[in-house]
Amino acid sequence: MKIAVINPNSTISMTDKIADAARQVAHKDTQILASNPTNSPPSIEGHYDGILALPGLIDEVKKAQNIGVDGFIIACFDDPGINACRELTAQPVIGIGEAAMHCASLIAASFSIVTTLNRSVPIIEEMVVRYGKNHLCKKVRAADISVLDLEDSGSVAKQKIIEQIQQAKQQDGCEAIILGCAGMADLTAELSQTCQIPVLDGVVCAVKLVEALASIPLLTSKVNSYAYPRSK
Amino acid sequence: MKIAVINPNSTISMTDKIADAARQVAHKDTQILASNPTNSPPSIEGHYDGILALPGLIDEVKKAQNIGVDGFIIACFDDPGINACRELTAQPVIGIGEAAMHCASLIAASFSIVTTLNRSVPIIEEMVVRYGKNHLCKKVRAADISVLDLEDSGSVAKQKIIEQIQQAKQQDGCEAIILGCAGMADLTAELSQTCQIPVLDGVVCAVKLVEALASIPLLTSKVNSYAYPRSK
Amino acid sequence: MKIAVINPNSTISMTDKIADAARQVAHKDTQILASNPTNSPPSIEGHYDGILALPGLIDEVKKAQNIGVDGFIIACFDDPGINACRELTAQPVIGIGEAAMHCASLIAASFSIVTTLNRSVPIIEEMVVRYGKNHLCKKVRAADISVLDLEDSGSVAKQKIIEQIQQAKQQDGCEAIILGCAGMADLTAELSQTCQIPVLDGVVCAVKLVEALASIPLLTSKVNSYAYPRSK
Amino acid sequence: MKIAVINPNSTISMTDKIADAARQVAHKDTQILASNPTNSPPSIEGHYDGILALPGLIDEVKKAQNIGVDGFIIACFDDPGINACRELTAQPVIGIGEAAMHCASLIAASFSIVTTLNRSVPIIEEMVVRYGKNHLCKKVRAADISVLDLEDSGSVAKQKIIEQIQQAKQQDGCEAIILGCAGMADLTAELSQTCQIPVLDGVVCAVKLVEALASIPLLTSKVNSYAYPRSK
Amino acid sequence: MKIAVINPNSTISMTDKIADAARQVAHKDTQILASNPTNSPPSIEGHYDGILALPGLIDEVKKAQNIGVDGFIIACFDDPGINACRELTAQPVIGIGEAAMHCASLIAASFSIVTTLNRSVPIIEEMVVRYGKNHLCKKVRAADISVLDLEDSGSVAKQKIIEQIQQAKQQDGCEAIILGCAGMADLTAELSQTCQIPVLDGVVCAVKLVEALASIPLLTSKVNSYAYPRSK
Amino acid sequence: MKIAVINPNSTISMTDKIADAARQVAHKDTQILASNPTNSPPSIEGHYDGILALPGLIDEVKKAQNIGVDGFIIACFDDPGINACRELTAQPVIGIGEAAMHCASLIAASFSIVTTLNRSVPIIEEMVVRYGKNHLCKKVRAADISVLDLEDSGSVAKQKIIEQIQQAKQQDGCEAIILGCAGMADLTAELSQTCQIPVLDGVVCAVKLVEALASIPLLTSKVNSYAYPRSK
Repeated sequence: MKIAVINPNSTISMTDKIADAARQVAHKDTQILASNPTNSPPSIEGHYDGILALPGLIDEVKKAQNIGVDGFIIACFDDPGINACRELTAQPVIGIGEAAMHCASLIAASFSIVTTLNRSVPIIEEMVVRYGKNHLCKKVRAADISVLDLEDSGSVAKQKIIEQIQQAKQQDGCEAIILGCAGMADLTAELSQTCQIPVLDGVVCAVKLVEALASIPLLTSKVNSYAYPRSK
Repeated sequence: MKIAVINPNSTISMTDKIADAARQVAHKDTQILASNPTNSPPSIEGHYDGILALPGLIDEVKKAQNIGVDGFIIACFDDPGINACRELTAQPVIGIGEAAMHCASLIAASFSIVTTLNRSVPIIEEMVVRYGKNHLCKKVRAADISVLDLEDSGSVAKQKIIEQIQQAKQQDGCEAIILGCAGMADLTAELSQTCQIPVLDGVVCAVKLVEALASIPLLTSKVNSYAYPRSK
Repeated sequence: MKIAVINPNSTISMTDKIADAARQVAHKDTQILASNPTNSPPSIEGHYDGILALPGLIDEVKKAQNIGVDGFIIACFDDPGINACRELTAQPVIGIGEAAMHCASLIAASFSIVTTLNRSVPIIEEMVVRYGKNHLCKKVRAADISVLDLEDSGSVAKQKIIEQIQQAKQQDGCEAIILGCAGMADLTAELSQTCQIPVLDGVVCAVKLVEALASIPLLTSKVNSYAYPRSK
Repeated sequence: MKIAVINPNSTISMTDKIADAARQVAHKDTQILASNPTNSPPSIEGHYDGILALPGLIDEVKKAQNIGVDGFIIACFDDPGINACRELTAQPVIGIGEAAMHCASLIAASFSIVTTLNRSVPIIEEMVVRYGKNHLCKKVRAADISVLDLEDSGSVAKQKIIEQIQQAKQQDGCEAIILGCAGMADLTAELSQTCQIPVLDGVVCAVKLVEALASIPLLTSKVNSYAYPRSK
Repeated sequence: MKIAVINPNSTISMTDKIADAARQVAHKDTQILASNPTNSPPSIEGHYDGILALPGLIDEVKKAQNIGVDGFIIACFDDPGINACRELTAQPVIGIGEAAMHCASLIAASFSIVTTLNRSVPIIEEMVVRYGKNHLCKKVRAADISVLDLEDSGSVAKQKIIEQIQQAKQQDGCEAIILGCAGMADLTAELSQTCQIPVLDGVVCAVKLVEALASIPLLTSKVNSYAYPRSK
Repeated sequence: MKIAVINPNSTISMTDKIADAARQVAHKDTQILASNPTNSPPSIEGHYDGILALPGLIDEVKKAQNIGVDGFIIACFDDPGINACRELTAQPVIGIGEAAMHCASLIAASFSIVTTLNRSVPIIEEMVVRYGKNHLCKKVRAADISVLDLEDSGSVAKQKIIEQIQQAKQQDGCEAIILGCAGMADLTAELSQTCQIPVLDGVVCAVKLVEALASIPLLTSKVNSYAYPRSK
C-alpha cells in the first residue's frame, strides 16, 4: 500500500519529521510518500496562511494521484482543503486533526488539545464542532509558540507544551491530550511518559486510519458532495 | 463610501448582475466597485471550485485595499475564504451567505434556502451551523440547476426555483426564503411577488450590512484570530 | 427615514442618552424619534420588571405607528416584547441585544457580554441561545452595578465595567465586548480605547440594522408567526 | 394544600374546563383555586395576545398570594410570564407546557405536540428548546383550529386533532402525544383511547408537579434570577 | 399506593437511609417498599459496577411486580438499567438522577451537581446531556469521597461536600445544588441550611414524581421502545 | 495480533457470520478470536435484551483477557456495556456501532442507518448523539425484520433492507448507508453494489480500528472514567 502524506507548508525539516512519525507506525508493507509544496508558506498560522497553502497542496494531491496511491493524509492539524481533496479522488483522504479526534474518542472519555499559537485556537474550536467532538473536547489550549519554534531543538517549545498539558490535566478534567500541530509529532511518546496521560499525534492516527479504510476498502462516497468536480 | 464587491468566479455577466443588485440598494453616496478574478472557475459548484477561486479572490481584495475601500463583500453564497480575508484588512468583510441569514433572522422566525445544485446543499448546511442558524433554517433545497443556467435567460431555471419555493412554503413551514446563489440576485423581487413570501438575496443584504458596519465604524477585531497574518 | 427608538423603562435621562447614541450614527436623512413610557419601571432588572414595561412599550409602538415610521428599536438589552411588536407592524423591529450580537459576529470570532446585575446574566444567556450565538459568546458577565448607577456620573460604575472587560480579555479569550445595557451606550468609544478591544453598544448597531432593512426594504414576514394579531 | 390555577385568558368556560381537569387528579386534600383575569384577551394566539394577558395574570398571582397558596399553575401552554411569576413568590410556579414535556419524558422516549393554530408552532418550538426537549420532541403540529373552537361542542375541532395524532403516530415515530392547548384538557382520555397512544394534558401534569414540589417542600430558588423583584 | 424503591447496590445501611428519606416525603397513603439486591456490589462507582448491579436490580423489579406496585424508583444517581426496567412494566419507572434534574429545573434557572468520586463525573455529564439539561447544569463536581464514606458517620465526607457546594455557589453561578449520590439523601436539609441554597436529593424527588405519574395515572408508553421485551 | 470479537447474543450462526466478515478484512497477521456467551438471549432487540447479555459479555471479555489479546470488539450495533469493558482492560475496546459511524464520517458527508426493528431506532438515535454524529446522520430507519430473520436465508429480510436503502437515497439525501445490525455483515458488498452507494458494516470497521489502535499502540486512558474498577 502507498500513502501520500502531504505537509501543506514548505518546511522540509517538518516534512521529514512527519515522515518519520508516519513510518514508525505504518505497516511494513505500507510505503509512505511524504512531500510538501515549495510554493506554500513555511508554516500555517491562521486562516490566511491556510489559504496560501492550498494551490500547492492540490498540486501534491494530483502528483500523488499520477503515481497511484491508496490514500492521502493532509498533515496539518487545521485539515486545510480536506473536502476539496475528497472531490479529486476516490481514495480516502484523512486530515490529521480529524484523525486525532476520532482516535482520542475511542480511548478516552474526553480530551484537551494543545496547539501552538493562540490565533489557531478559534480555528480548532470550529473544527471540534464540525467533527462532532464538542462534548468530548474540554479545552483548546495554546502553548504560545510559533510553529517553527518546534523545528528549533534549542527552543523552550517542549517545556511550554508540557506546562499546558499539566494544566489541562489539573484544570480541564480531560483524560487524553491531542497535540494540535504536525510539528509536535516527534514529542508524543516523551510527553505521554512525562505527563502520565495518553498523548495523541494526528500523523500517526491518520496513517493507521488510511491503512484501515484502504484495506477494507472503503472509498470516498461519490454520491453527492464529494463527487468529482464538474467540468466547466 | 466605497465598497468592493468581489464575485469570486470569473463570469463577467454574473459580476454585472451582482453589481446591479448592489447599486439598487446602496446609498447614493456609496460607490460599488464590482470585480471578479480572471483566473478562477466560471462558477463555484462544490469544495474544489471554491478552492480554485481563492487565489484570485485574495488578489481582488488586495487590489481593492490599494485603492482604499470601506468594506468588502464576497459575492458567492458559500462565503469562500471569508476569514482569511478578515485577516488581511481591518475594514469589514461580509459574505453574502452570512448576510442573508442574519437579515432573514431579523424579519422571520424561520427560513429555507434554495440553491442551485444538490452538491452545494451539504456545504450550505455546514454554514448554517457555523452561523448559528440551525434552529431557524428549516431546509436547504436544490433547484437542480447549474450556476451558469442562471445566466441563460431562456433556461427553465427560474421555474425550477419557483417550484422549490412553493414546496418550501407548503412542506417546510418556513416564513422566508433565502436565495442560495449570487446568480439569483436579479430574481428576488419577482420571486417574492410570485410566491407571496419574503425572498432574500445575500448581495443586497451584504451591501447594507457593510454600509452599516463601516459607518459606525465597526472594524474587524485584530485581537486574535483575525489579526494580520504573521510575517514569516 | 424615521426610526422609533423606544426605551422601555421610564427614566428620561436614559432615553436622552440612547437618543444621543442613536443620532451619532444615524444617517443624516434619518430622524430618530426617541421615547419612553411613563408607566413603566425606572429600570428593567429581571423578568418581572421586563413584564411591567410591556404595556407602555406596546403603547409607544402604536403611537409611533400612528405617526408613521420606517422601523422600530427596542432599546433595552433584554429585547422585551420583541416578537409581539413584530406582530403589530410590518416595519422591521430590532432589539438592541440581538443587534449587538449579530454585528459582533460579523467582526469578531467570539465575544463576551458585560451587563449590570448578576440577575440579568441568566436572562441574557437564554437570549444568546435563542439568537444562535452560543458558540460565539464566551461568557456573560455582571459588573455588579444597578442600571441607575449608570445615570449617576459620580458612581464607580465605569470602573467596574472596565474591570470586567479586562477580565474578559484575559480569562475568556474573547475578541470583542458587547455592553449588555442600553444605559452604557455613552461609554462605548472610551471603553474600546481604554481596553484595546472592539466594544459594541446595541443602540448604535440597531440603528444601522433598521436603516439597512428599511432601505432595502425588507419587511417582517407576515406568513405565520409574525402575522398581525387575530381579531377576537 | 391550595393551588392557584390561573387561566391567563378571559374565557370563563375554559377556566371551568381547566378547573375540572385539575380537580379530577388533585389529591383529595388539595384545593384548586381556578381563576382568570377579566382584562385579558379571550384566547392567546401568538406573541401579542400573550403579552396582553400578562398584567391580568400578574394580578391573579398577587390575589392568590394574598389568600395564601402552596403553588401556582399558569394554565396556558405557552407558559406566559412564568419566570416573572417565579420572582414574585417562593411557592413553586409551574407552566402547563413545561409540566407536560417533563412528564412525557418520564414515560416515553419521544413525543409530538398537537396545538391549535400554525402561528403557535414556532412559539412552542422555541419552548421545546428552552426546556431541553429538542431531542425528544419529534414534531410540533397544528390542527388548524382556533382556541375558541374548542369551546364550541359542535365544532369539528376534535376530529382535526385526531387526524394530527394519527399522522404523528404514522409519520413522526413518536411514542406519546402532548396536547398543546389548555382548552383540550377535557379530551385527553378519549383521544388516548381512540388513538391508542399515551396523550398528555399539561393541566393535569402541572397539578401533580405542584403538589409534588410543595409537599417536599421544594421552593423556588431566590439565589439569583428568581430573587424577589428589586424595589426601585 | 405502593412504590418499590430499589437501591441497586447491596449496602443495607444505604437502603435504610434511602427508605427513610423516601418515607419522609411520601404521602401518608403511600407505602414505600425499599429493597436491594444481595448479589450486587456494595457501591456503584463507575460503569463496571453499574453493570454488575443490573441482574440483581432486574430481580428486584420482578419481585416488586409480583407483589404489585404502582411505580418503581431506581435509587442510584446513575439511573442504571432504567430503560430496560421501563420495558418490563407499564408502571412508571423513575431514576433519582433524572428526578432530581427535572425538579431542579422547575425551581431554579441553573444547578450544579456534587457527586462522590471523580470517575463518576463523566457518567453524570453524559446523563445531563441525555436528559436535556446541558443548558442548565453549570458543573458536575466530585467531593473526592467514596460512596461508602457516606455510611461512616465519623468521616469527613460531609465537610468535603460542603466545600464543593460553597465553591459551586461562588464559581459556577448556579442557583441550586443536586446531590449526585443516593447515599447523601440524609444530608439534604442540613446542607441547604448551611450553604443557603436549595439542595435537592433525587430520592425525595423521585418519590413525588412516581406518586404524581401513578395517580394521574400516566403509564409508560408501550408504543415502541418501551414495549414489553419480545419473546424469543 | 489477536483480536477478541465478541457477539453478545448466543446465536452461533451469527457469531460465525461475524467471524467471517472480520477475517475477510483482518490483516494476515491478525488472529480473530470470535465467541459468544451461552447464557445471553439469542438476539438483542431493545434495552432489556441488551442488559440480559451483559454478564455473558463480561465473562467473554475476561476469558479473552486471560488468553491475552490486543483488542476487543463488541459485535452488536448497540455497543452494549462498552464503557464497562473499557474499565476492565487497557487494550482498546471498540463497538461496531461507533466504528461504523466514525468510518462513515471519514468517507461521506452524511449517512443514514438501516436497522432491524423499530424499537431499536430510539436506542440508535441516542447513540448517534452520544458519538457526536447528529449533524451527519440523516435518519435511522428500521427494515421491520427481527434479528433472527437475518439468519434465515429464505427470508425476505434482504429485500426489505434494500427498500430502506433506496428510500434513504431518495428521501434522506444521505451519501452512505450504515447497516445497523451485526447480522447484516454478510450483505455489505451486495447491498453496496445493488444500491450504488457506499454501505458500511460495523464489524469490518471495528476490526480495522482495533488493528489501528493496537499497532500504534494507543491504549485506553486510565486517567479517570476508564480506570480499573475499584476493589471493594
